[in-house]
Amino acid sequence: MTLPGRIFLHSPGPTNIPDRVLRAMHRPCEDFAAPAFQDLARSCLSDLSRVFRTEGESFAFSTNGHGTWEIPLVNLVEPGSAVLVPLAGRFSGAWAEMAEKLGLEVITTPPDLGRAVDPQAVEDALRADKAGRIAAVLTVHTETASSARTDLEAVRAAIDAVGHPALYVVDAIASLAVERFEMDAWKIDCALTASQKGLMLPPGMGFAALGERAMQVAERCSHPRRYWDIQFRRGDAGYQWFHGTPPLQHVWGLREALDMIFEQGLDAVIARHARLAEATRAAVAHWSQAGTLDFQTVRPEERSNAVTAIRTTDGTDPETMRKRARERYNVVLGGGLGELQGRVFRIGHLGDLNEPMLLGALATVELAMRDTALACTEGGVVAAVRALSTR
Amino acid sequence: MTLPGRIFLHSPGPTNIPDRVLRAMHRPCEDFAAPAFQDLARSCLSDLSRVFRTEGESFAFSTNGHGTWEIPLVNLVEPGSAVLVPLAGRFSGAWAEMAEKLGLEVITTPPDLGRAVDPQAVEDALRADKAGRIAAVLTVHTETASSARTDLEAVRAAIDAVGHPALYVVDAIASLAVERFEMDAWKIDCALTASQKGLMLPPGMGFAALGERAMQVAERCSHPRRYWDIQFRRGDAGYQWFHGTPPLQHVWGLREALDMIFEQGLDAVIARHARLAEATRAAVAHWSQAGTLDFQTVRPEERSNAVTAIRTTDGTDPETMRKRARERYNVVLGGGLGELQGRVFRIGHLGDLNEPMLLGALATVELAMRDTALACTEGGVVAAVRALSTR
Amino acid sequence: MTLPGRIFLHSPGPTNIPDRVLRAMHRPCEDFAAPAFQDLARSCLSDLSRVFRTEGESFAFSTNGHGTWEIPLVNLVEPGSAVLVPLAGRFSGAWAEMAEKLGLEVITTPPDLGRAVDPQAVEDALRADKAGRIAAVLTVHTETASSARTDLEAVRAAIDAVGHPALYVVDAIASLAVERFEMDAWKIDCALTASQKGLMLPPGMGFAALGERAMQVAERCSHPRRYWDIQFRRGDAGYQWFHGTPPLQHVWGLREALDMIFEQGLDAVIARHARLAEATRAAVAHWSQAGTLDFQTVRPEERSNAVTAIRTTDGTDPETMRKRARERYNVVLGGGLGELQGRVFRIGHLGDLNEPMLLGALATVELAMRDTALACTEGGVVAAVRALSTR
Amino acid sequence: MTLPGRIFLHSPGPTNIPDRVLRAMHRPCEDFAAPAFQDLARSCLSDLSRVFRTEGESFAFSTNGHGTWEIPLVNLVEPGSAVLVPLAGRFSGAWAEMAEKLGLEVITTPPDLGRAVDPQAVEDALRADKAGRIAAVLTVHTETASSARTDLEAVRAAIDAVGHPALYVVDAIASLAVERFEMDAWKIDCALTASQKGLMLPPGMGFAALGERAMQVAERCSHPRRYWDIQFRRGDAGYQWFHGTPPLQHVWGLREALDMIFEQGLDAVIARHARLAEATRAAVAHWSQAGTLDFQTVRPEERSNAVTAIRTTDGTDPETMRKRARERYNVVLGGGLGELQGRVFRIGHLGDLNEPMLLGALATVELAMRDTALACTEGGVVAAVRALSTR
Repeated sequence: MTLPGRIFLHSPGPTNIPDRVLRAMHRPCEDFAAPAFQDLARSCLSDLSRVFRTEGESFAFSTNGHGTWEIPLVNLVEPGSAVLVPLAGRFSGAWAEMAEKLGLEVITTPPDLGRAVDPQAVEDALRADKAGRIAAVLTVHTETASSARTDLEAVRAAIDAVGHPALYVVDAIASLAVERFEMDAWKIDCALTASQKGLMLPPGMGFAALGERAMQVAERCSHPRRYWDIQFRRGDAGYQWFHGTPPLQHVWGLREALDMIFEQGLDAVIARHARLAEATRAAVAHWSQAGTLDFQTVRPEERSNAVTAIRTTDGTDPETMRKRARERYNVVLGGGLGELQGRVFRIGHLGDLNEPMLLGALATVELAMRDTALACTEGGVVAAVRALSTR
Repeated sequence: MTLPGRIFLHSPGPTNIPDRVLRAMHRPCEDFAAPAFQDLARSCLSDLSRVFRTEGESFAFSTNGHGTWEIPLVNLVEPGSAVLVPLAGRFSGAWAEMAEKLGLEVITTPPDLGRAVDPQAVEDALRADKAGRIAAVLTVHTETASSARTDLEAVRAAIDAVGHPALYVVDAIASLAVERFEMDAWKIDCALTASQKGLMLPPGMGFAALGERAMQVAERCSHPRRYWDIQFRRGDAGYQWFHGTPPLQHVWGLREALDMIFEQGLDAVIARHARLAEATRAAVAHWSQAGTLDFQTVRPEERSNAVTAIRTTDGTDPETMRKRARERYNVVLGGGLGELQGRVFRIGHLGDLNEPMLLGALATVELAMRDTALACTEGGVVAAVRALSTR
Repeated sequence: MTLPGRIFLHSPGPTNIPDRVLRAMHRPCEDFAAPAFQDLARSCLSDLSRVFRTEGESFAFSTNGHGTWEIPLVNLVEPGSAVLVPLAGRFSGAWAEMAEKLGLEVITTPPDLGRAVDPQAVEDALRADKAGRIAAVLTVHTETASSARTDLEAVRAAIDAVGHPALYVVDAIASLAVERFEMDAWKIDCALTASQKGLMLPPGMGFAALGERAMQVAERCSHPRRYWDIQFRRGDAGYQWFHGTPPLQHVWGLREALDMIFEQGLDAVIARHARLAEATRAAVAHWSQAGTLDFQTVRPEERSNAVTAIRTTDGTDPETMRKRARERYNVVLGGGLGELQGRVFRIGHLGDLNEPMLLGALATVELAMRDTALACTEGGVVAAVRALSTR
Repeated sequence: MTLPGRIFLHSPGPTNIPDRVLRAMHRPCEDFAAPAFQDLARSCLSDLSRVFRTEGESFAFSTNGHGTWEIPLVNLVEPGSAVLVPLAGRFSGAWAEMAEKLGLEVITTPPDLGRAVDPQAVEDALRADKAGRIAAVLTVHTETASSARTDLEAVRAAIDAVGHPALYVVDAIASLAVERFEMDAWKIDCALTASQKGLMLPPGMGFAALGERAMQVAERCSHPRRYWDIQFRRGDAGYQWFHGTPPLQHVWGLREALDMIFEQGLDAVIARHARLAEATRAAVAHWSQAGTLDFQTVRPEERSNAVTAIRTTDGTDPETMRKRARERYNVVLGGGLGELQGRVFRIGHLGDLNEPMLLGALATVELAMRDTALACTEGGVVAAVRALSTR
């Protein structure tokens, strides 16, 4: 079945790829060993550090978001050591599982799907680590399944309060170029991201940035590794930066995406995400007046600017509405994952998005709720318009 | 300045080009004399006749919409003869001017920018043509400047009532694959269209369909012509169909666009346009409750499904709002043309459009009106949602 | 049947479209009335004049090459006047026929398919025009059917020798950005070209440049016209430049193509064409040693840098070879047109071409000749290599 | 500097990406959890098994060629076990090094850069493994650095002769869809490939196929792993197949590339590679008559159909020629890697290639050799034409 018009992609990722980026990628391959490509690749890695807000080094991998999770685990943690993973939803859970599968000891703090990571729980867990076995704290900045955003400065403060030497490792997959993110100012030792969210690229690339302390740990780390090995990728030869053939088209796309971010201004990009997220929350708050919907993330300050998860409070399964939105109106929403299945739907609002795109999605959610008799107070989209208006 | 996100193109044309069509056109040239291309071109011409709903022949030209206007003037009207052009706005006016410039006598009926063509005026003009000098009645189906749609069956009835032998020539540029259009059933002798509206292509091609009677007139017509000559283009050689090098990429795009129309079903495409137009009108009716806005086209049955022109009734110049929509929100609206400048703005809703695209545009119009203090009753977009909902 | 690899397009047009140009055209439409597009369009028209090497004005049309022929006929020639068309092949013949169909008197000089236009014949014809009825001399710079290139300076000298006031109008469709072309220095009053040859664009646009004298004639000219009317297109509004909706994608492609030409340098582009053409001629000369092939254009100085027509001298029909090249090897060659059918094949070497592309085509011609037993002296491609080598 | 014309990419990879594939990838993202995408992904994996000629299962990874090497190492080899890597050049060497870095014991057979893997050496090494510590034999089918192709059936026979239970793992990165490859018939337990060679895609994906025996080993294997874990990827959910977000654009490209391979026929694709390689070798043999060049791979039956390495025998450094080819003519050749640097250049002839592309490259190599005075017998390209001709 051919649906007319454009797709509205409001799962929290992959996100809309700007035409400029798709165009930049529509190119035949070239000699990746030639200076032109090598200079371009180097400029991307260096500009990625600007986006991470770090003086540290950035690395690029042909992989996806989940693949990047292995990078700190094998470069920064000795076999036999432990990692602390404060749980807050599906993705921190999957990261913890990965650490375990790679043979590490995993200590977790208990999840609350209505909340972000609790810094106090992190502090407590670190304090309990008398033996100093925790090598790293692995924190997911934005849990897209629950839409909660953790306060990274508070987690940093918790680590500092204990004076624990663990490295601070952050999954910024759903937050880089979306939320304020200050790698160096917040003393984050290693940050990860992927191509298909705030960086507006097709999926297929992952990135890691490492600060000086992390680089030193990586140099000494005995964990067996090769493809993910940061040391190997620091070499002079362009061949090493990607450990083999670079994904040329993705790199061209990345260059274009970075150019777009800097043309708009990174701060302006982040401010735009905040503005569109605020409008989404205005719509949800309006709809929720009926008493049948609510924010999945309880505390306003923990609601992310990447995605908003909405819970039905009357037992309605929002899948009927979500299916309607996708199959009839070409609007893709996120569903509830894991325990939240059948109780939550999610509206992604990150990446290359503007007001009419968001308003079109919100109005269509309202339309699909109406079509499928999902109870709500009509007029959320008007609340969003009001939130966006400068007047 | 790089605006984030996608453009929302709601001038009444050019319209959104589906990704499939742009992809189909992203191809190097080929041997246009080879059978593969010639078969493809022939299939397009034949399928165009299906869209025109005619047993007649279709012709394709490298030109734009205005260029197609010359086709009937030089193929169907003897030098020295007259044409009757019932005026209803800017485009019928320009067509009349073209006829004059090409040396024809032009008889017009007086325009009313709040109305479509008045069939009675056509009937009167034809009755007055005792000498039988009128060779053709040139009617614009949808006047995009005023957004009025003429009742083509009623004009046909007017011609028939007089029994006048003039050919019936229709500009379907803004109506083909948008409105119900029945070339044979309505005894239209010649219909014109262009690539960039309902056919969802880039501008650069024009099309004409001629019924049997028109073909016979064209065969005998002594008007000097070559590029526009229908007879030459009827030849067996593919070279003749386009009078020289065919626009290969446009033809590939046309094939894809026609495939999309038939996949969705031509009737479904037309029904979708009606549905989206109805939603737009619901929004405008809601906004207009404030008494400061109104439909430019007075009669509901004359409001087109391609575009809606909205008049300010309190003297406000809508250009401020329109500029805001474009420069801040990337939403392109039509302005007032000619006499309507400074009094009218227009929302196009034709082509490859779906509900979230339209709702996003309507919500952003509401946002831009709010930003610029253009008075209206808030909530038009909710009225549109209601109009679209199946419940 | 899917042939592997890329097509080698060596008909003399349409030509290879650079990836950069195709990418630049892969864009959704925008608001063509906005300043951004209008500035871009203006820059293209002004840069086109640089390519024509004229201080005059350039105009752009949605049409094809044949369509541009009408421009001087209706803007520069009064109805009832005559044009002189020195014949040299199929295209000058078709232009003459067009002039006739548009109601003009046509005076021709006799064609010799092995030769370019004879300036003496032009001089004689002008001298014979005692009544001064000839309003324009229409000369095709490069006749792609025969591959002969006329000496435009010599034709100019012939007009000057007579002191005849006729305008000098040149079809530079196959020569602009291919051969040296000096509109002002050679006192050409009007020059025409199309998008799909040296300008490396898809077919679908035509261009005309008019010098001051031609502009003055156009201002007074009473020939009925509208779409082709130069006066109308000189207006201030962008809308007028294209007489309606501009072909946005083509204009974006044109901007990119002009950028590429200026990046390489127009002189360098022309020098490259000369170099590649010389290599082609070296190959043909080598093949011809067998005595069964020869240049269609007798005089070396009349052999164009756009295309080389090769005649079989032993009665072999080269179509078998040409079919083999296309169907088995994906190399498209030109065939013999009109009287030359069954006796000539043509190798186009214009547009976005480099050494490996040309050598690949020449080697494959040699391969296809071998496959189909078309007699020739083996090794033409090595002669081409030698001609290209700087050593 | 903008070079005119197309790039001729004759390093042995990445290779030419067909326009159809680039077009298929020029798409916005979609809902990868929807059935449409999942069905498509499944069809690709199943069709990949057809290309590998196996009844086994295929797996797809966002990674590059080097990344795929980790797959068998962590899924099929217990920590502490050994792998046998018969060395034949740079890539087998790098694979051995990776195995070592991942903590495995590595046994090698000595390399001879003029030869493929010696099956006798494999047999000897296996016979010497009295303790049965070798878990897998890792064989690179085609060593692109030396251009030698190993006889996989002979290696299989060597394993069988010893009756050693080691798994047979083959790197088919440069050979799949290039050379005859019969995974099941040759009892290969695991085969690897990447996207950017015979599969004609951009780099960024890697693939592994596992036969039944390898699957059983993987099920029991205790090697710590997650991203590369085959077991996890066998799950029912599409999410698992790619261990996270799938690279949608690459998958669309893969679907198109597989369609192209099957349209042409896999056997025909392989036969074409053999034909074009044979023509390349004919050119090289001709050039070598001067006594200053020779094949790097000594034995004719070991010369691969993917790439031909050419050695200078008089001490000339071919880099000057290679630089000339790239910088002046836009022809990219491979250089000598490692020990072969300064003594070898390589002509890749794999992927989406046809006769004119290859002949253009060969003629340009001849041209660049001439330009840079690299001694050879002139006329290699004519020898290639003869080799390709059916007559």
